[in-house]
Amino acid sequence: MSKRLMLLSNSTMHGRGFLDHAADEIKDFLGDVDRLLFVPYALHDRDGYASKVRDRFADLGIDVDSLHDVDNEEEAVENAQALFIGGGNTFRLLSALYELNVIEPIRRRVEGGMPYVGSSAGTNMACPTIRTTNDMPIVEPPSFAALNLIPFQINPHYTDPEPGSTHMGETREDRIREFHEMNRIPVLGLREGTWLSVEAPHVELGGNVNARLFQAGKAPEELEPGASLDFLLSKKP
Amino acid sequence: MSKRLMLLSNSTMHGRGFLDHAADEIKDFLGDVDRLLFVPYALHDRDGYASKVRDRFADLGIDVDSLHDVDNEEEAVENAQALFIGGGNTFRLLSALYELNVIEPIRRRVEGGMPYVGSSAGTNMACPTIRTTNDMPIVEPPSFAALNLIPFQINPHYTDPEPGSTHMGETREDRIREFHEMNRIPVLGLREGTWLSVEAPHVELGGNVNARLFQAGKAPEELEPGASLDFLLSKKP
Repeated sequence: MSKRLMLLSNSTMHGRGFLDHAADEIKDFLGDVDRLLFVPYALHDRDGYASKVRDRFADLGIDVDSLHDVDNEEEAVENAQALFIGGGNTFRLLSALYELNVIEPIRRRVEGGMPYVGSSAGTNMACPTIRTTNDMPIVEPPSFAALNLIPFQINPHYTDPEPGSTHMGETREDRIREFHEMNRIPVLGLREGTWLSVEAPHVELGGNVNARLFQAGKAPEELEPGASLDFLLSKKP
Repeated sequence: MSKRLMLLSNSTMHGRGFLDHAADEIKDFLGDVDRLLFVPYALHDRDGYASKVRDRFADLGIDVDSLHDVDNEEEAVENAQALFIGGGNTFRLLSALYELNVIEPIRRRVEGGMPYVGSSAGTNMACPTIRTTNDMPIVEPPSFAALNLIPFQINPHYTDPEPGSTHMGETREDRIREFHEMNRIPVLGLREGTWLSVEAPHVELGGNVNARLFQAGKAPEELEPGASLDFLLSKKP
């Protein structure tokens, strides 16, 4: 079975409800899945987060188990029909995955064809490392190595420079340029409202705005919704 | 000799030259120092950075040696009259300090009274850890533990929420709230144009706008320029 991932830049668009902007596509992607395993560790309030996700997926006819509620996490991953890793703080999320020893079980299941939905920090998790997260390093994971389900990096919530801003912090593009001073691997900037559908060997950009691709030593490129990004799966890190 | 630090939020204000907004105060702080050791590792172009810093301090009548140019880094720290750690990427900077084995020598000298000037990433370095940096984790340091010269965290380039923004990434205040879900230590948000002068046991806020203090379990507080923050030195992490 081919590897299948749906990686969202963000879970919520300004002025809309949780996952509303991509609900139809998530439902299509999950096909006949009727029970999902949710990973809530990016937020502090795991019960609240699980309850929000449970309500949202109930509307799609999908039941939800939360990883923080199960007796045996590895077994829950082993038996899941599909996985959804929600957004929040990437460092907190990755630390929890290490602590629970679920990195390898998740990798194995996704490599074997279990559908994976990630948003924001959950999208960072699918990358080789968390080196392109936007989050504050509020806790220290044992390593920056993440699930490594795709051979390139994603920068979620990608944002263009604010015209007229007088703030002197680095723009997102500056930060990714600095990333490429130290790393060679491509970085796909996913603007809010976009997502990446990976059905190996195919990769397609979803949503209604462009993504921006950064490659070491090249000028950034704008990619349009619907664009095939299959070439990214064959990139060597 | 008492511990002396000048910790700037940022090195450059919009529309002004490098360090211009605090040049008089840096000169006052350094007193009769006529030679400074500069730490350029937060940027990739160390030669370019050292040359920019050398030119700027020449205007203040101060010569500059750059740590990347010396034969023996530990010895250079041992013999320095004063230290300036410039801004850039905090993860890259901390990785370099570990690699060069200068963490302990710098700590020892600053504890012994050597004046320390930091800006942005150089200000993050003075904190117990880099857990309140804004930077992208483009490289993985062996630890998030930093120089630990002060017993609280600083968030440089502190910025208020943009009115009317539709971007769904966390605001700076959200990020620091998430920090306090996982840590107890106070965080001082230094807006651009401000700095902290530490002359133990005294701590004073410099610049012309407020700073914002975040403490676990308390509402954030606004602190005015000139405010005494001596109480921060006695906080237990």
